[in-house]
Amino acid sequence: MALKSFVEVSPDSHFPIQNLPFGIFKPEPGSTPRPGVAIGDYVLDLSSISDAGLFDGPFLSGSDCFQEPNLNKFLALGRPAWKEARATLQNLLSADEPKLRDNANLREKSLVPMGKVEMLLPIVIGDYTDFFSSMHHARNCGIMFRGPENAINPNWFHLPIAYHGRSSSIVVSGTDIIRPRGQGHPSGNTPPYFGPSRKLDFELEMAAVVGPGNELGKPVDVNEAGDHIFGLVLLNDWSARDIQSWEYVPLGPFLGKSFGTTMSPWIVTLDALEPFACDAPKQDPQPLPYLAEKISKNYDISLEVQIKPAGQEDSCVVTRSNFNHLYWTVTQQLAHHTINGCNLRPGDLLGTGTISGPEPESYGCLLELTWNGQKPLSLKGTTRKFLEDGDEVIFSGCSKGDGYNVGFGTCSGKILPSP
Amino acid sequence: MALKSFVEVSPDSHFPIQNLPFGIFKPEPGSTPRPGVAIGDYVLDLSSISDAGLFDGPFLSGSDCFQEPNLNKFLALGRPAWKEARATLQNLLSADEPKLRDNANLREKSLVPMGKVEMLLPIVIGDYTDFFSSMHHARNCGIMFRGPENAINPNWFHLPIAYHGRSSSIVVSGTDIIRPRGQGHPSGNTPPYFGPSRKLDFELEMAAVVGPGNELGKPVDVNEAGDHIFGLVLLNDWSARDIQSWEYVPLGPFLGKSFGTTMSPWIVTLDALEPFACDAPKQDPQPLPYLAEKISKNYDISLEVQIKPAGQEDSCVVTRSNFNHLYWTVTQQLAHHTINGCNLRPGDLLGTGTISGPEPESYGCLLELTWNGQKPLSLKGTTRKFLEDGDEVIFSGCSKGDGYNVGFGTCSGKILPSP
Ligand SMILES: [Ca+2]
Ligand SMILES: [Ca+2]
Ligand SMILES: [Mg+2]
Ligand SMILES: [Mg+2]
Ligand code: NI
Repeated sequence: MALKSFVEVSPDSHFPIQNLPFGIFKPEPGSTPRPGVAIGDYVLDLSSISDAGLFDGPFLSGSDCFQEPNLNKFLALGRPAWKEARATLQNLLSADEPKLRDNANLREKSLVPMGKVEMLLPIVIGDYTDFFSSMHHARNCGIMFRGPENAINPNWFHLPIAYHGRSSSIVVSGTDIIRPRGQGHPSGNTPPYFGPSRKLDFELEMAAVVGPGNELGKPVDVNEAGDHIFGLVLLNDWSARDIQSWEYVPLGPFLGKSFGTTMSPWIVTLDALEPFACDAPKQDPQPLPYLAEKISKNYDISLEVQIKPAGQEDSCVVTRSNFNHLYWTVTQQLAHHTINGCNLRPGDLLGTGTISGPEPESYGCLLELTWNGQKPLSLKGTTRKFLEDGDEVIFSGCSKGDGYNVGFGTCSGKILPSP
Repeated sequence: MALKSFVEVSPDSHFPIQNLPFGIFKPEPGSTPRPGVAIGDYVLDLSSISDAGLFDGPFLSGSDCFQEPNLNKFLALGRPAWKEARATLQNLLSADEPKLRDNANLREKSLVPMGKVEMLLPIVIGDYTDFFSSMHHARNCGIMFRGPENAINPNWFHLPIAYHGRSSSIVVSGTDIIRPRGQGHPSGNTPPYFGPSRKLDFELEMAAVVGPGNELGKPVDVNEAGDHIFGLVLLNDWSARDIQSWEYVPLGPFLGKSFGTTMSPWIVTLDALEPFACDAPKQDPQPLPYLAEKISKNYDISLEVQIKPAGQEDSCVVTRSNFNHLYWTVTQQLAHHTINGCNLRPGDLLGTGTISGPEPESYGCLLELTWNGQKPLSLKGTTRKFLEDGDEVIFSGCSKGDGYNVGFGTCSGKILPSP
């Protein structure tokens, strides 16, 4: 029989007992941020569970990691502690286990209705790196900017291309995004213009949350890289295409990206995603030995983007994609990141890059979906080349199991006008 | 008469009472890190001075910022507090002031011989950005990689180009640097090779230390940007040219940089550098209004790089440059960084980019000095195209005043072989 919780969970919920994603929340406006897991329409307060002495396994008993205002200390403990926490919580929440089920006082204290809580960024992000691992995205961008002959640069098939991103401007889902101002360049020898971005875009991404990390000078083996990834989140790497295309030669994207990046509040663990593991695409040419994995896997996670224009009641689905389109796996990304000796720290974030599928309906950003504004998208009663003020962009992600989902909830943000 | 300290300071010292740079140190191996300022051959322990109640001005009395293991809290207080700290310490250390001079007990406790202390990274660096602000460097790199016709990309003269760097691998002067491994690419259609970098280089830079920073969505005006810069440090942006040149299209430098960046331990304040302010180069074309400064200034800071090969007693000077070669000022860099709404936080680091002068003897990295290995440098009895294992690279920087220096000390690192 399938694992079931005493907390009622509707069949279409993203958060059944099989999931148990970790986040940081405030139960009430004035209260201290604390770790929680999502279960149905509730958040289980891990600080209460820890206070009650219910984390009694060898790795977590006596630890104060669930009294922290972020998950970094928990992430630093590594996979044995993560597995222990998951096992403890699955047991505690299961229908057969009376410890929490029959303790009205503790239930009252620890199970908070999700509608009442404020979700915060779950981690302190020391460094954020953004990869470029979807071949379809790389090809589409290449065709638009450099023509079909040189669409994908030769290095792309040999290494997971990435750039360092900006940590300070990563915000949690629900935070408004102010349209950035900056320089753009129409074409030819005309001087650049300055003003609010005219080509504001989203990028449909996911990101790996790193723990426990590695020392400077000590690369992580690609076959052990999975032990350095706690879980995944949805990530919107908002992008101002006009700013980006004018600034990015030769040092890469900078202000076209750094005005804001939105992450979903719930980190879904790799352990919860394991039933949805699938083969990664075959790589040709063969990667160099330091990138060659014994088992090269992706996860089957359906992704969807909706846009809700200002003043409209309904949102429109603008794309459907899947995490399994990634050419370079997250473990290859992580191993590559450290091969030069670079150190990763608990809470570092590795974005996958825009996840585009092969079909036009599965492209992961407006740049591709509208082919740089040449083919406007129609949204019930209106059209879009790029994002307009008041648009709300809503990502969702979900893996469908046999009778249950392992979902990510949503990752959303609304565009406010430039100051 | 010139300001003078009761602490004896030799005339060639970098650290007279006119300087008073801030750092973080441990007086003894087991002790807690704490803030200090350099004075001659001593470090003044600011935690003791604070304990003794001697920071009695309106901004610092009652603050525990000097009990912290990093300077971030002090940086967050902003320029009025920074000026007050400087005035308090200049007074306390001056020859005429008996408060510390005649208090043997406090002197004993607070003045630690520099030879005995361990210097640590002075700040927790949330984000590190590296600019590309020397025209001579941009031109030389452009000629080598893209030919003389397209040496400098058209965007360069309109905005201070930059990339997000890696915070986790920033280390303090004296930390060994392990030669990174990675992919390089010989040329043409051959596959990439993998191994220890064959073109390891230094980059002579300085960096601005940010405080107090700005909120997301609230750009800093270029004419107020100086109030967001606490001071400057020397910075060695170690670079693996073979890794960098293979990976950097289209998203910029990544593993060719992220294996290590070395900063000097002492932050020299802009207030101490003010006597050395000089006009920045005239900019043509005129920058856009958001980058146009009422007063556009650089500082006259002489910079020098020495290499000390393994097993040799002597080091050789390989270049002499000056901070005043920068085309884009640090205040323009900071204003540009925030124009899209990006938030800066106390302790963020803004590297200037390699500071090359116009003459071949003033180029700021081996790539330029040896013209990508084509013209080896001779160092007493040996030659160098790029750095070899065991080489120690030592930067120094100093502004010469009338009878005193305002110096940065050194910023050094030794290359260890790949694992
Ligand atoms: Ca991206
Ligand atoms: Ca640099
Ligand atoms: Mg972004
Ligand atoms: Mg570096
Ligand atoms: Ni010059």
